[in-house]
Amino acid sequence: MQVDTLIHAHWIIPVEPENVVYENHTLVINHGLIVDLLPTAQANQKYQASSVENLLQHALIPGFINSHTHAAMTLMRGIADDLPLHDWLQQHIWPLEKKWVSEAFVSDGTDLAIAEMLRGGTTCFNDMYFFPEIAARQAIKHGMRAAIGLILIDFSTAWAENAESYLEKGLALHENLRHEPLITTPFAPHAPYTVSDQPLQKITMYAQQLDLPIHIHLHETEFEVQQQLAQTGQTPLQRLDGLGLLSPNLLAVHMTQLSEADIALVAKTGAHIVHCPESNLKLASGFCPVNACLAAGINVALGTDGAASNNDLDMLGEMRTAALIGKGVAKDASAVNAMTVLKMATINGAKALGLEKVCGSLEIGKAADVVAIDLQHLETLPLYHPISHIVYACSRHQVTDVWVAGKPLLKQRHLTTFDEEALKGKVKLWQQRLSVFG
Amino acid sequence: MQVDTLIHAHWIIPVEPENVVYENHTLVINHGLIVDLLPTAQANQKYQASSVENLLQHALIPGFINSHTHAAMTLMRGIADDLPLHDWLQQHIWPLEKKWVSEAFVSDGTDLAIAEMLRGGTTCFNDMYFFPEIAARQAIKHGMRAAIGLILIDFSTAWAENAESYLEKGLALHENLRHEPLITTPFAPHAPYTVSDQPLQKITMYAQQLDLPIHIHLHETEFEVQQQLAQTGQTPLQRLDGLGLLSPNLLAVHMTQLSEADIALVAKTGAHIVHCPESNLKLASGFCPVNACLAAGINVALGTDGAASNNDLDMLGEMRTAALIGKGVAKDASAVNAMTVLKMATINGAKALGLEKVCGSLEIGKAADVVAIDLQHLETLPLYHPISHIVYACSRHQVTDVWVAGKPLLKQRHLTTFDEEALKGKVKLWQQRLSVFG
Repeated sequence: MQVDTLIHAHWIIPVEPENVVYENHTLVINHGLIVDLLPTAQANQKYQASSVENLLQHALIPGFINSHTHAAMTLMRGIADDLPLHDWLQQHIWPLEKKWVSEAFVSDGTDLAIAEMLRGGTTCFNDMYFFPEIAARQAIKHGMRAAIGLILIDFSTAWAENAESYLEKGLALHENLRHEPLITTPFAPHAPYTVSDQPLQKITMYAQQLDLPIHIHLHETEFEVQQQLAQTGQTPLQRLDGLGLLSPNLLAVHMTQLSEADIALVAKTGAHIVHCPESNLKLASGFCPVNACLAAGINVALGTDGAASNNDLDMLGEMRTAALIGKGVAKDASAVNAMTVLKMATINGAKALGLEKVCGSLEIGKAADVVAIDLQHLETLPLYHPISHIVYACSRHQVTDVWVAGKPLLKQRHLTTFDEEALKGKVKLWQQRLSVFG
Repeated sequence: MQVDTLIHAHWIIPVEPENVVYENHTLVINHGLIVDLLPTAQANQKYQASSVENLLQHALIPGFINSHTHAAMTLMRGIADDLPLHDWLQQHIWPLEKKWVSEAFVSDGTDLAIAEMLRGGTTCFNDMYFFPEIAARQAIKHGMRAAIGLILIDFSTAWAENAESYLEKGLALHENLRHEPLITTPFAPHAPYTVSDQPLQKITMYAQQLDLPIHIHLHETEFEVQQQLAQTGQTPLQRLDGLGLLSPNLLAVHMTQLSEADIALVAKTGAHIVHCPESNLKLASGFCPVNACLAAGINVALGTDGAASNNDLDMLGEMRTAALIGKGVAKDASAVNAMTVLKMATINGAKALGLEKVCGSLEIGKAADVVAIDLQHLETLPLYHPISHIVYACSRHQVTDVWVAGKPLLKQRHLTTFDEEALKGKVKLWQQRLSVFG
């Protein structure tokens, strides 16, 4: 049978079913979809392909899903480190955004983020930033899968004036993008402390009508929780529950401040948690009790947050940090194991974004969002357990090839849809502009 | 003036003085020592060299000092992950060591460790393992600086029979190695729970006589502390204090269980702490209160621990984890900042090992233990603050060149004193042997 692509690999880790590692197998891709996964000897008999990859030192895994980021903030990578959260936001990030955020900033910043994410094996990102139409345009241009948040915040920014106009522009953008195969459009109200009740209720209504996820920062810091308690008598989680937001449509990002009752409430409602361990540590926000959340049956996905608070968009590194800190917080070295964090970085993200029929695992019928990792570096030898090595020993430069919907976007570490030198040139111009201001 | 080597670099970060970044400067090396550090324009007028490096995308930093590892355990990298500490040690690591540890194992395992460390910018390691004469031999062979621990443990292993014979072999090895320019020999009693009072007292006496450091695991877990309290009525720290071990000669490794009084005691005695954050997280041992220790004036160095509990020997990654977890534990985003962890990974390690006149910073008169990092990857752009980027955004494959005592050991990512393919072949043989047993 004639197909588009055969990828012969030493190891294939489908993620679903979990804890499975196929050896000397082949992934068969046609029209952007995975159409078969079988032993290489059989594949060579059954299929002929216009493109054949022999990746005999490599493991194939599903592409990572970065379930929370602010892509364009790559342009502020490292501009204000080691500062208390308030100084960081109010003295640095917000003034810089006020001065610089524009269509051009979002275009170049999103490009840098997509390039970095592809080079690290990420094939889908869930974005929350201004000028989402520009982020969507760049994702489409580069062949990247993305959930482009319809951002909403009470106050005026360069993109919109007030809650009403954010919502209007967001709904129009959703309408424009609804037939784009690589793009979905979750609502993205920024946070309980920046969005008032009325717009949150409207979003809830529209999310139900249009069956769209809602992506929001929640219980990021103790200060946030205490402030809302003082102002409203309710925690942010209680307030959102009262407004009807807690449902399988909700992606609650950060969640470092959770009582046992909070965990039970989230589990009961089917809401998803997006864990961003490196951002939570770097901003000293607190510790998400991931092991307890998983034990309660909550679907926990993984995100890097923006590069200004991380300072990378490296899902391999984020998996490792999630596993390490998950054990430390649970006081149990067997907690949050390698397979668990690999799921958090792939299929759990797909579930949170309503994309579990599209991506998140290497299963027949899903899109061919695939990553090849060379495991024969000195740093990953000896090799006893591939899944464990990917989480605990592998670095992102061992990612050699990446496909999204069957299209090769990284080939032997070369980005196929970018002029890398031109991109570096643009980024350095932004560096000069922002340096002068800072 | 004629010298051996000029390294022209975009940035030079000497570490001492701290928070200094020289731009367009040159490091001048002669007979293995740093003899000058000056603006490149002046260097070109003043010096002629047989070897000239133009590293115009790069930052030069002092080589990392990995202040606690078990180098040969690289051969057990990833063999037993995600297990409770007791299972990990008693069901996996100890039986494997009993079966396999030999001169050949230590030789090949130490080679793999040195190769990995050089590729990640580490120029000196403080080792604790069996057959230290073999580890020393391999370090000398490959031109690596090392503190080779004279291991001591109460019970019999392949290397020695009892405390007496460990001490005897250790003292003989010290005598053999005392004129090796790259090698020092700290005493390395394993831990309070594996070494009894008498050998600890002897070591204390010899350490004073010979002016050698003492390298010991201490307060690694709550279990260790509670068990010794129950058995002796003293915490391990109190017991070591009573035996006279707490002094500027002591490197206390891990120290995750510390009261305020403990911190004050360590500070008063001038003992050093070696922080191993990734191992502490992976084995769920606990959290070292690094910010409080630093505030008390304790010299805190950084180590990776062995690859079986990490699972890499990556000091760049370890710095980053130390900064992130340091902030999280201190609940302060400005705690344990980038400069602080860069010192922990360099000069603080040199101080702990009594090598502060030899290495740990790029200062005139010290050995040329130097690392070049290419900061012009997409992942480290834009670039506002080089020190911050090295800690928060850089990965170890951005290390391009490494010198120890002026000798190039890594040139454009090529190891000059290894046959990399032959090493991989040896490691894969060990993988086969250990897999059969496991």
